Amino acid sequence: MKNTFGNNVSLTLFGESHGEAIGVVIDGLCAGIEVDDSFIKSQLAKRRPSGKTDTPRVEMDEYRIVSGVYNGKTTGTPIGIIIPNANTKSKDYQYGPARPSHADYVAFKKYDGNEDYRGGGHFSGRVTVGLVCAGAILIQALNRLGIKIGTHILSCGSVNDTSFSLESEQVEKEIDKLNSRECGSIPVIGNVEDAIYNEIIKAQSEKDSIGGKLQTAIVGMPQGVGEPWFDTVEGLLSHALFSIGGVKGVEFGAGFDFADMHGSVANDQLALDENGQVVTKTNNNGGINGGITNGMPIVFNCAIKPTPSIGKKQSTVDFLKNQEVDIEIKGRHDPAIIRRASVVVDSISALVMCDLLATEYGTKVFVKGL
Amino acid sequence: MKNTFGNNVSLTLFGESHGEAIGVVIDGLCAGIEVDDSFIKSQLAKRRPSGKTDTPRVEMDEYRIVSGVYNGKTTGTPIGIIIPNANTKSKDYQYGPARPSHADYVAFKKYDGNEDYRGGGHFSGRVTVGLVCAGAILIQALNRLGIKIGTHILSCGSVNDTSFSLESEQVEKEIDKLNSRECGSIPVIGNVEDAIYNEIIKAQSEKDSIGGKLQTAIVGMPQGVGEPWFDTVEGLLSHALFSIGGVKGVEFGAGFDFADMHGSVANDQLALDENGQVVTKTNNNGGINGGITNGMPIVFNCAIKPTPSIGKKQSTVDFLKNQEVDIEIKGRHDPAIIRRASVVVDSISALVMCDLLATEYGTKVFVKGL
Amino acid sequence: MKNTFGNNVSLTLFGESHGEAIGVVIDGLCAGIEVDDSFIKSQLAKRRPSGKTDTPRVEMDEYRIVSGVYNGKTTGTPIGIIIPNANTKSKDYQYGPARPSHADYVAFKKYDGNEDYRGGGHFSGRVTVGLVCAGAILIQALNRLGIKIGTHILSCGSVNDTSFSLESEQVEKEIDKLNSRECGSIPVIGNVEDAIYNEIIKAQSEKDSIGGKLQTAIVGMPQGVGEPWFDTVEGLLSHALFSIGGVKGVEFGAGFDFADMHGSVANDQLALDENGQVVTKTNNNGGINGGITNGMPIVFNCAIKPTPSIGKKQSTVDFLKNQEVDIEIKGRHDPAIIRRASVVVDSISALVMCDLLATEYGTKVFVKGL
Amino acid sequence: MKNTFGNNVSLTLFGESHGEAIGVVIDGLCAGIEVDDSFIKSQLAKRRPSGKTDTPRVEMDEYRIVSGVYNGKTTGTPIGIIIPNANTKSKDYQYGPARPSHADYVAFKKYDGNEDYRGGGHFSGRVTVGLVCAGAILIQALNRLGIKIGTHILSCGSVNDTSFSLESEQVEKEIDKLNSRECGSIPVIGNVEDAIYNEIIKAQSEKDSIGGKLQTAIVGMPQGVGEPWFDTVEGLLSHALFSIGGVKGVEFGAGFDFADMHGSVANDQLALDENGQVVTKTNNNGGINGGITNGMPIVFNCAIKPTPSIGKKQSTVDFLKNQEVDIEIKGRHDPAIIRRASVVVDSISALVMCDLLATEYGTKVFVKGL
Repeated sequence: MKNTFGNNVSLTLFGESHGEAIGVVIDGLCAGIEVDDSFIKSQLAKRRPSGKTDTPRVEMDEYRIVSGVYNGKTTGTPIGIIIPNANTKSKDYQYGPARPSHADYVAFKKYDGNEDYRGGGHFSGRVTVGLVCAGAILIQALNRLGIKIGTHILSCGSVNDTSFSLESEQVEKEIDKLNSRECGSIPVIGNVEDAIYNEIIKAQSEKDSIGGKLQTAIVGMPQGVGEPWFDTVEGLLSHALFSIGGVKGVEFGAGFDFADMHGSVANDQLALDENGQVVTKTNNNGGINGGITNGMPIVFNCAIKPTPSIGKKQSTVDFLKNQEVDIEIKGRHDPAIIRRASVVVDSISALVMCDLLATEYGTKVFVKGL
Repeated sequence: MKNTFGNNVSLTLFGESHGEAIGVVIDGLCAGIEVDDSFIKSQLAKRRPSGKTDTPRVEMDEYRIVSGVYNGKTTGTPIGIIIPNANTKSKDYQYGPARPSHADYVAFKKYDGNEDYRGGGHFSGRVTVGLVCAGAILIQALNRLGIKIGTHILSCGSVNDTSFSLESEQVEKEIDKLNSRECGSIPVIGNVEDAIYNEIIKAQSEKDSIGGKLQTAIVGMPQGVGEPWFDTVEGLLSHALFSIGGVKGVEFGAGFDFADMHGSVANDQLALDENGQVVTKTNNNGGINGGITNGMPIVFNCAIKPTPSIGKKQSTVDFLKNQEVDIEIKGRHDPAIIRRASVVVDSISALVMCDLLATEYGTKVFVKGL
Repeated sequence: MKNTFGNNVSLTLFGESHGEAIGVVIDGLCAGIEVDDSFIKSQLAKRRPSGKTDTPRVEMDEYRIVSGVYNGKTTGTPIGIIIPNANTKSKDYQYGPARPSHADYVAFKKYDGNEDYRGGGHFSGRVTVGLVCAGAILIQALNRLGIKIGTHILSCGSVNDTSFSLESEQVEKEIDKLNSRECGSIPVIGNVEDAIYNEIIKAQSEKDSIGGKLQTAIVGMPQGVGEPWFDTVEGLLSHALFSIGGVKGVEFGAGFDFADMHGSVANDQLALDENGQVVTKTNNNGGINGGITNGMPIVFNCAIKPTPSIGKKQSTVDFLKNQEVDIEIKGRHDPAIIRRASVVVDSISALVMCDLLATEYGTKVFVKGL
Repeated sequence: MKNTFGNNVSLTLFGESHGEAIGVVIDGLCAGIEVDDSFIKSQLAKRRPSGKTDTPRVEMDEYRIVSGVYNGKTTGTPIGIIIPNANTKSKDYQYGPARPSHADYVAFKKYDGNEDYRGGGHFSGRVTVGLVCAGAILIQALNRLGIKIGTHILSCGSVNDTSFSLESEQVEKEIDKLNSRECGSIPVIGNVEDAIYNEIIKAQSEKDSIGGKLQTAIVGMPQGVGEPWFDTVEGLLSHALFSIGGVKGVEFGAGFDFADMHGSVANDQLALDENGQVVTKTNNNGGINGGITNGMPIVFNCAIKPTPSIGKKQSTVDFLKNQEVDIEIKGRHDPAIIRRASVVVDSISALVMCDLLATEYGTKVFVKGL
């Protein structure tokens, strides 16, 4: 249902880039979960622009939790969060010439010219600040249950990072390391931070932008969560992930590499680990069989397209005048959103995991345990 | 919500592979749409096993529409369809040793040993017969509005088919050609039918299976359909598509190829066509910007994993005995489901398109027009 | 969403009065719940016409569970049930003259003349056979948890039955007595069966029909279930109950009698019972405060309008000819549906209770316990 | 889904009585609808306490629309509204002794002692300020289509007001008169304002409170809106209405009076009016047949229980100490919420009507017309 997502734990998002505020409502989270403001701030910091590779529009994200948290804990009623927009420069935005690969033209068609087009309006990446704020609370709820989520840049241009490991224990360490990274740094597992930085700077220097691939792992989810039809873990995650501006592909485990595999290679053969637990020897299915968690790390990749806003001259259409024009986009933009998008992916994944757990185990799972 | 999908036009699915029947309910389709049985039959034929590349379990799919159609037209009330299972051979299935990459083990964990495991139960590809039946009715509703859907095998093993063209008119011709293919033939645009056939036969001869990539195009959808959050066209389609057994990745337009593109290459620049309509010069966004249709063909790819059921010996766990065992899967299976899956993708895509249209234009859009 | 109701345990209904079959799908019920066919049959018997006070259309309701039950237990996947229509006499129904207070005219407007009007089509009370079938399975799930539901005729014409008692233990006995009534008998607590029977027969003898009030009690529901906004227990129950043809009012506890009460009389003062449990000294709130169960019996009344089909001459409009005409309704009808409706109310109430429990405690609550 | 209600036009509500703010999000309302602040203010004024019959807690309701409205019109994206709480006096509230017929005890059980209990928290009537704010925008959308909603006090204690008339034209005049009433006045059709005022003052003087019955009429809705199962107009309205604190019964048309009617009296016979339109000679069905609008005024009554907060001594339980105690409620309360509740009923009814229209006619119905 449009700007609300989730069945038993849900999130409602509102706000425009240059409006008064971004807002988010979390519903369905049970009472008694501690809300640690320092963690919310650290998550917001991961999303915040920083250094040369990001937009110069820096917001301090002075969020206010206006409901649903009392004495430092969730009350069980909806958590409303407001994040005022401060650093807006609307005059940079011109209405009429559609920025290629942006939503300008479709917004004009859908909203008949009534859209708040300034800064991309409701389509802006700015709106994701609400997701990250809410996600931070949801991640705290998951962490109580030993569930962890981490995302790194798997590739950017010609640079490839190391993939997550196979076993949960090792993946958990990789997640911890990613999540404790310094503010402004690029999330990677291997030693490719400088190489990716250089790719981005190079694109920027050419008034261009660059895409990439994010890889996410989730460990600690119990077996048996998700449904065969239609609320598969893959389906719910992808439904939510495609909301993030720039995500144009989602694949689980081996994903598109399955296309030229044989079953004998692709199949994850089963075994017992040293504790007698059922595990798989490979994780080509990304922790999900038949739409349902199998206990292995949930692993998926998101394809992120290059930021559409580039300084280079492009041809387009002025939809007000219905004529072809050239455009050189000014304003403040990221040459690559992939660094900042990683924490957004974590946040929205946390929403889906919380929702799945509340559906399977009931609303109080976060305080009662699995 | 589990086995029901869709907001305004929805579908509810039930049935197990070796149970009495598969069933499906379409809800929300307005009154007055002609239901042509010969079209339903031809769609079912596309899904039906045929020749050497498919399972020898052939069902005649003698569906019965038990409600919602009267005098050859929809009544506006829910359309219930029952497809009895006839050709079941349950003794081929053994309970305990988990077939690798199948849902056997997660089903055992989720349903505590009460699942109807025969033939994969509710996880079986057999259940998709309900989708195809319902999809045939939904496709008829779309065709009335000039909307067409077609799917071909973009790759299988090392063989690649030609992609869909750029322009809607040309894509429509490609779709028509695909949809008028002979029963049992492999859906391709280029001249690769024999090559794909050989890839599949080769895998089969090695007691193995093979994966592939499906590419789907939808033409005729109006501009401005879909939402920025969370009911993006990409999100809704992927949510539904990941239900199809074996789909492990969904990408729109350039998808994962975006990862190493620059914005100046990736961006779809806009232009006016000879009729003064806004079009894009490329379609890397697959017809969708900001989650909303832009009027170009909607194009997406699904990664299909190799059929998990292979004759080769594999190691696994017998979950009843909690011990490691070897398994050689018998029974009747497809060496590649990709041929038969194509019509399932069309069907589920039709559901999402119908739902989007009913949401945007109201329930009677299919008789009143856009 | 139209013909599907429920968030975590849901029900999808399809079928027309004179179509091939009525069907129902239960989704979300966990695996491992015994399904006792004799109980389903006894519930169907309570709904079946019997004797002089009911329609002569008697169906044997030969239901078939086509999925979701295996070896006598639920599998955790959707339970599909088909109940063929056997005893149909379509020629009794004429299309054009709208039967007053029936849905004929609105159906014509909504479905543009494509509705299956025979026997009331999808609006027919016949469709409730699906609800009762499904409800029987849901009631079995509730009984495992010690939750019981019973409904009696609180009033019919000028006859009033005794209300349910105050305390849970006593109410449970009244429910047990109601539910063990003989097939065809009228569900009452006090000694008013003959008086009600006479009211109905009198109406019938005048070619007329009569309405009434049903009162339902539910005992055993845990405290703390339901939501303040919008999924109150009252809201969910009433949403479902108003689907039943003829229900035109729903009130909880004192309901409309609150209108002229003072707070000092209306308020349910709290006390500790002999076991130290919090109870209320009265139950004017019908077991619900702020939308949430308080542990007292849930008690509500449904107003049932007189069966619209009467033999007396009435004036109406022939909507095909757009002219005023007189109508004398033939066919087979109940002079009062209130007796047969009682088990339908139980069934739909069971759905809402199951849904509330699965939402609060998780999907496996029915096998794991509260 | 809990704090979100509506399928295609939906509303999400958050906030506690003594928290920072109440908030509401409207989603699904199309672009281009004028938002008139003076109308919102006049609706808020109708809900605001006034004079001797209401709580002395007066809030100026300085709402801020933080998103979704631009240049005085809706943008088509979610409308976020924040209404800060100003006049809070938390020290009046004591935690432990449950106020009879309030939600204190169930909140304690549901939220395990983490609820924000001050002023009733999320259960407070204060939260309805969000509904009225949102409702004012929704009512403006409906008015554009000629649809009007009005509510009056049908009874309070022993005083009865005149019911709405039969014909739409006359009802529209009654609605207009009700809605143009002076701020602080009691909404009635007949000449009973003083009598009702006296009933309330009398209850108040006895440290007591009083209940009542509200009657609502909606004119201008097209025929054919609503569904037979489960989204009947009655079901959707009642689902929403029971959220309003104090509503314990909802009846449509003759409602509970049907219980002792014969069909020949109860049935609404059809006729053609002077314009050849189909109308009914009575409106016992309250404008709805088979769950679907028939074009007559939609008429329903809500039973409102007496405000539970009374100054009289009552016996209760201190749930923290688990012991019986006496309670005399202090703080600021209404002796009757019925006057202020009327505009809340209008607001929530507007939500349901908007949702029904958007479902039937598509999202742009409010600018394109029916």
